[in-house]
Amino acid sequence: MGLTALCPGTFDPVTNGHLDIIGRAALRFEKVVVGVLENPGKQPLFEAEERVSMLKEATTDLPNVSIEAFSGLLVEFAQRMGTGVIVKGLRAVTDFEYEIQMAQMNHLLAGTETLFMTTSPTWSFLSSSLVKEVARLGGDVGELVPAGVRDRLLERLGRA
Amino acid sequence: MGLTALCPGTFDPVTNGHLDIIGRAALRFEKVVVGVLENPGKQPLFEAEERVSMLKEATTDLPNVSIEAFSGLLVEFAQRMGTGVIVKGLRAVTDFEYEIQMAQMNHLLAGTETLFMTTSPTWSFLSSSLVKEVARLGGDVGELVPAGVRDRLLERLGRA
Amino acid sequence: MGLTALCPGTFDPVTNGHLDIIGRAALRFEKVVVGVLENPGKQPLFEAEERVSMLKEATTDLPNVSIEAFSGLLVEFAQRMGTGVIVKGLRAVTDFEYEIQMAQMNHLLAGTETLFMTTSPTWSFLSSSLVKEVARLGGDVGELVPAGVRDRLLERLGRA
Amino acid sequence: MGLTALCPGTFDPVTNGHLDIIGRAALRFEKVVVGVLENPGKQPLFEAEERVSMLKEATTDLPNVSIEAFSGLLVEFAQRMGTGVIVKGLRAVTDFEYEIQMAQMNHLLAGTETLFMTTSPTWSFLSSSLVKEVARLGGDVGELVPAGVRDRLLERLGRA
Amino acid sequence: MGLTALCPGTFDPVTNGHLDIIGRAALRFEKVVVGVLENPGKQPLFEAEERVSMLKEATTDLPNVSIEAFSGLLVEFAQRMGTGVIVKGLRAVTDFEYEIQMAQMNHLLAGTETLFMTTSPTWSFLSSSLVKEVARLGGDVGELVPAGVRDRLLERLGRA
Amino acid sequence: MGLTALCPGTFDPVTNGHLDIIGRAALRFEKVVVGVLENPGKQPLFEAEERVSMLKEATTDLPNVSIEAFSGLLVEFAQRMGTGVIVKGLRAVTDFEYEIQMAQMNHLLAGTETLFMTTSPTWSFLSSSLVKEVARLGGDVGELVPAGVRDRLLERLGRA
Repeated sequence: MGLTALCPGTFDPVTNGHLDIIGRAALRFEKVVVGVLENPGKQPLFEAEERVSMLKEATTDLPNVSIEAFSGLLVEFAQRMGTGVIVKGLRAVTDFEYEIQMAQMNHLLAGTETLFMTTSPTWSFLSSSLVKEVARLGGDVGELVPAGVRDRLLERLGRA
Repeated sequence: MGLTALCPGTFDPVTNGHLDIIGRAALRFEKVVVGVLENPGKQPLFEAEERVSMLKEATTDLPNVSIEAFSGLLVEFAQRMGTGVIVKGLRAVTDFEYEIQMAQMNHLLAGTETLFMTTSPTWSFLSSSLVKEVARLGGDVGELVPAGVRDRLLERLGRA
Repeated sequence: MGLTALCPGTFDPVTNGHLDIIGRAALRFEKVVVGVLENPGKQPLFEAEERVSMLKEATTDLPNVSIEAFSGLLVEFAQRMGTGVIVKGLRAVTDFEYEIQMAQMNHLLAGTETLFMTTSPTWSFLSSSLVKEVARLGGDVGELVPAGVRDRLLERLGRA
Repeated sequence: MGLTALCPGTFDPVTNGHLDIIGRAALRFEKVVVGVLENPGKQPLFEAEERVSMLKEATTDLPNVSIEAFSGLLVEFAQRMGTGVIVKGLRAVTDFEYEIQMAQMNHLLAGTETLFMTTSPTWSFLSSSLVKEVARLGGDVGELVPAGVRDRLLERLGRA
Repeated sequence: MGLTALCPGTFDPVTNGHLDIIGRAALRFEKVVVGVLENPGKQPLFEAEERVSMLKEATTDLPNVSIEAFSGLLVEFAQRMGTGVIVKGLRAVTDFEYEIQMAQMNHLLAGTETLFMTTSPTWSFLSSSLVKEVARLGGDVGELVPAGVRDRLLERLGRA
Repeated sequence: MGLTALCPGTFDPVTNGHLDIIGRAALRFEKVVVGVLENPGKQPLFEAEERVSMLKEATTDLPNVSIEAFSGLLVEFAQRMGTGVIVKGLRAVTDFEYEIQMAQMNHLLAGTETLFMTTSPTWSFLSSSLVKEVARLGGDVGELVPAGVRDRLLERLGRA
């Protein structure tokens, strides 16, 4: 029996950088559960339901990937999903320091293990907030997110 | 005559990481004043008075430590406390960059010297905001803060 | 024909650190356009008009420097100014990671090139937000900003 | 069928920090192969054979862990071991930058995936070279390495 | 009259990452002089003459780029080339810290200005030493360096 | 009774950056012992005796500062000097990561406490090795080290 990997995040919205990590995790682990945090600290642009739906569209060709919304402690959600393994992408040093703190906290709380993958160089500069900022100012984000996500961004921002 | 060390912070609430620094400072300096910033930029969870009171409870066994609330410029508070020496804990690189800016500003403003201690590895991943987030989501923070602080957190968050 | 360099920022308000970068850019490039972002994410202390005016006062002795307010995508503003070259100061590692992301995004969006200068060591700890915090708490910022900026800060903060 | 994880290194000598990573990998992966690099750039203190033997002693209670020496390209060794997954510990930011470069090179060369675990806070300050330096100067390394490794260090350094 | 940019380095050997920076500098500056440091601290694999010759081959399509070997202080070489502007690529944070020290030293010694470009994400993990290590171990470096450089590497390492 | 601070280093040779830290430590601590490491890993340019003598010349106006050579474990030297407090300057993030490891090792070995001061911005780019490199190439280091050190550097490098 293989490992299940949990890829958590806010995905507001999912970018090509997230999809790179999810796709590479799907190659290595028997199952990948993408966990969409329902109520992050900051007000998201898209509802959890929409964020789940964009992820589902973008991962239809990955049969061992499923998408689930969650709230509450990440380590408890991992337990409900039957896994003790979290997989995350790391882009930069500042990411790294925050993520290392979360990883050590989650290990202390529940013995949960976090495995980090390095984001592909092509997407190392990409983040959901940068995508939203560019789209809001009228820039073209077609190379940065799936086509369906770009359309929803334009619609949401009243630019379609 | 020995040195007085000023340990400033918001302490919303005090964690075992803060207490590690305060305890080690108390071993080395003749007097340690813990300065509790009354009105930090963000809305604190606990009033300054409660934060002072939790610190007092947690340091009763350290006779050369006193707790004081303050507002205004840190360097002026240091002067009122009769010291030119600030002691702070450093956990990570991102801490370091912000703290080095504050240290150099405080040296320019009043010649105040900042001495950094490295946080014990055991608590290197710990911060007040992480403790609050875990407690808010129902996680057990009993190993991360003194018992009295845990009780007040649960009460404040309506989980007691 | 020489290069035009665009120095973008919020300049809320301009500091001696910004002026160090602008002055050194003016030595090397034929023209320097300082671009003042009108509506940054956070509510600025000074209106764009005032920020432009403080910059104009502080650069009167630099004949090849002009000041312009802008909104929208930085790369489109650069195109309107007839240049594909952005010049920015780097102070610290955390700056660097954010700036590298923006630089790579701007290169992808429009082929715009970003050139980084290292901030002079004397001002490496300085930022507009630190200046505002010190001024707000009654500290003297006379060594950190031009005299005209200090006066406007005191007036705005009701301390003149 | 589960994943095999390859944990590569010089292990000159193995420390408690390495054993923490190997033990945690053994919990999550079906098989763990520890790959001992025979001829690292710098002259090692212990021959590859001794480094393998110390690792074997220290992992006797981990039935799914095996120890192998290797030379040449890491990605080719991984292929010989039948895996495309490397697992490494990350301690600090400077580690991170070097490791991210190696991970991306190995991905480019052979599609090999590197998964990073964060070293336990307790051992975050530990490295083989620091252990050797302390032992060479007569310091006690009994809390930092297994007892068998300490004995061999003392013998090798003529301090037994 | 436009600016001359000096791109200094050891180039042992030139990689696609170096060529990305040189090509982008050639787009923006009137002239680019690539300065090849003759005797770096460590023993280079290729003589200065060969390193110059590989650079010349790789930049034949860039008419405003010239290649020069130099020894001694970089700022004095810049003066002999008639420029006060150095252009360098930055890949990572550890690069940044070393480069910022050199930039500030060169500014102090001769008022020389250093402008940093961010290396393209595609090559952000690449360095001459990593290329040599991979080639030495028999890996294929054909995607990382120009074809002529790969051939010379194989020849030099006795693998052609 | 006040604290004794131990400022350890190789000081090959002492720079204005070191003297900034030593002078500021002398203001705050009752006694400052500067510990000169006799045999660092790399071959020093100056013998320990000369390094001690340059430090003595440069600190004659600081009556509470003494200079001592040492070999062996730093924590044992600290004990011989009657102190458990080490004071060091921090310039940059890469310094910080190495120093934090040493500080935690020294705390584990002997309970020794390390206090870090931030190097003055003016000297943040300065190191002994950069000074030696500049002097070796004929650059003027008169603003970076005391006059006596500059003279000895020129003499040693055959440039006087």
